[in-house]
Amino acid sequence: MVMSDSSDGACVAEALVEVRSYELDSFGHVNHAVFLNYLEYARFEALRQGGFPYEDLVARGWGVYVVRIEVDYLKEARLGDRLLVRTSVAGSRRSSVVFAQEICRAAEPDVVLARARVTAVWVGPDRRPTRVPEAVRVALGMTIAGEAGTA
Amino acid sequence: MVMSDSSDGACVAEALVEVRSYELDSFGHVNHAVFLNYLEYARFEALRQGGFPYEDLVARGWGVYVVRIEVDYLKEARLGDRLLVRTSVAGSRRSSVVFAQEICRAAEPDVVLARARVTAVWVGPDRRPTRVPEAVRVALGMTIAGEAGTA
Amino acid sequence: MVMSDSSDGACVAEALVEVRSYELDSFGHVNHAVFLNYLEYARFEALRQGGFPYEDLVARGWGVYVVRIEVDYLKEARLGDRLLVRTSVAGSRRSSVVFAQEICRAAEPDVVLARARVTAVWVGPDRRPTRVPEAVRVALGMTIAGEAGTA
Amino acid sequence: MVMSDSSDGACVAEALVEVRSYELDSFGHVNHAVFLNYLEYARFEALRQGGFPYEDLVARGWGVYVVRIEVDYLKEARLGDRLLVRTSVAGSRRSSVVFAQEICRAAEPDVVLARARVTAVWVGPDRRPTRVPEAVRVALGMTIAGEAGTA
Repeated sequence: MVMSDSSDGACVAEALVEVRSYELDSFGHVNHAVFLNYLEYARFEALRQGGFPYEDLVARGWGVYVVRIEVDYLKEARLGDRLLVRTSVAGSRRSSVVFAQEICRAAEPDVVLARARVTAVWVGPDRRPTRVPEAVRVALGMTIAGEAGTA
Repeated sequence: MVMSDSSDGACVAEALVEVRSYELDSFGHVNHAVFLNYLEYARFEALRQGGFPYEDLVARGWGVYVVRIEVDYLKEARLGDRLLVRTSVAGSRRSSVVFAQEICRAAEPDVVLARARVTAVWVGPDRRPTRVPEAVRVALGMTIAGEAGTA
Repeated sequence: MVMSDSSDGACVAEALVEVRSYELDSFGHVNHAVFLNYLEYARFEALRQGGFPYEDLVARGWGVYVVRIEVDYLKEARLGDRLLVRTSVAGSRRSSVVFAQEICRAAEPDVVLARARVTAVWVGPDRRPTRVPEAVRVALGMTIAGEAGTA
Repeated sequence: MVMSDSSDGACVAEALVEVRSYELDSFGHVNHAVFLNYLEYARFEALRQGGFPYEDLVARGWGVYVVRIEVDYLKEARLGDRLLVRTSVAGSRRSSVVFAQEICRAAEPDVVLARARVTAVWVGPDRRPTRVPEAVRVALGMTIAGEAGTA
């Protein structure tokens, strides 16, 4: 086990998300499940910004399966909010990556609305875990050394 | 009946929407139901840009209920697409508004992906149809003259 | 053009849908876009009940693209409602099918909440329109005779 | 601190959920965010089965805000799956409840697809944390003794 879970890594990417009307629930705020959508979007943005667009993922028949999430919801998001999602890599193994993510309002980047830790496994065309591809590691600024073990 | 259904009116507002990963369906393109979400978002944007934000709607206990939609899907939208939604008013009655909307790629504003006509009824705190408020008519650039009849 | 748009055909299938909490919008009722989800679900149910499950669709690389919808929303659906979606075939061409669908409360099957007409095009693995497969026509109880033209 | 986090309590309710086509993502399985929707639905079901329907919640101006989730995804859910969500109370404080939930296939109740722990805070009409109402504690079969502290 060499989960390189350092100090949650440097932020590898930022994504902007604007809250849309249909993402509010009957309590008038963004539903907690929608935050997972924002986080997913930001992870794909991180990959894209690092040079690995989603289209490449599809073309190679790869998949990224979320196997664990942990989210603390600290403040509400409301209609009209422009949100900033910061994504960094907090750890990795042979076929999995742990993302650390934070959502804040773009106008108040110090006030965190939600903090998340998401573990995703790379799967190949056969839908079985496979080594996180080199291109992905590069895109995410992951150090090569030190990963081992199975997903 | 004086449905002022002229030449679909001038465009009153444009809204930008970026396709997000979780909006794709199992066919790998934006699901047709998601287009309705984009259209709804753009209608609230039109109101907001005209000076009538959603918060005012909520504060006054008003609702906007969609009673009819008609959408022609002409081209697919895909991940990474930045979409532009154009909204105009195509007609109105005492308590309803007909919106004409178009979705195109922001980079190719002449190529229309979808064309919609959406009829929405204004409801008051008692959830019954009510006269479209003056502030809303102003926000949407609606001419006052000539509307009549019931929703 | 031989669009066999008879009297909206016989109902080929019924699907039950229970309204779930997260399908309500900030007006406290089922969002209009969610009705499209229910309608889609019911169409796949119609295919499944006719002997053509979604898995077969995927296995053959086929897709079903919605190219036009028309929905009249007559009454609200609310949390706890058990809905019944009736699906029939209202017309067809070489590569497209027009579905006529109705949503009512299961407990009051005569009170229609929404009435829809949905045109879907069959696409092959190359994502281009293709003839509606025989197995699908059989599943939907479509008469073979009389269809012609392009989608 | 008297978080009564016993052996995850007895199961207070079961809810059935059928996977619907539009809940699949571009990897062809139920998106991980949709599992949160299922879990939310099952929590409201647990309340309803215990005699406290959602309508009462709305009528009293109460809200239930999720403040923390933790989910382990063990197996995929696919179209056509009928899922069973088991909900129990794993702990509670003055204004919050910790739910322990499990999702399995109805046909294979021993095979768990996902395991979750969800913390929800009760809020009053002023949107501030308030004591979990007695009616809710009864509905969830929560023992009164031993809870203390703030949410």
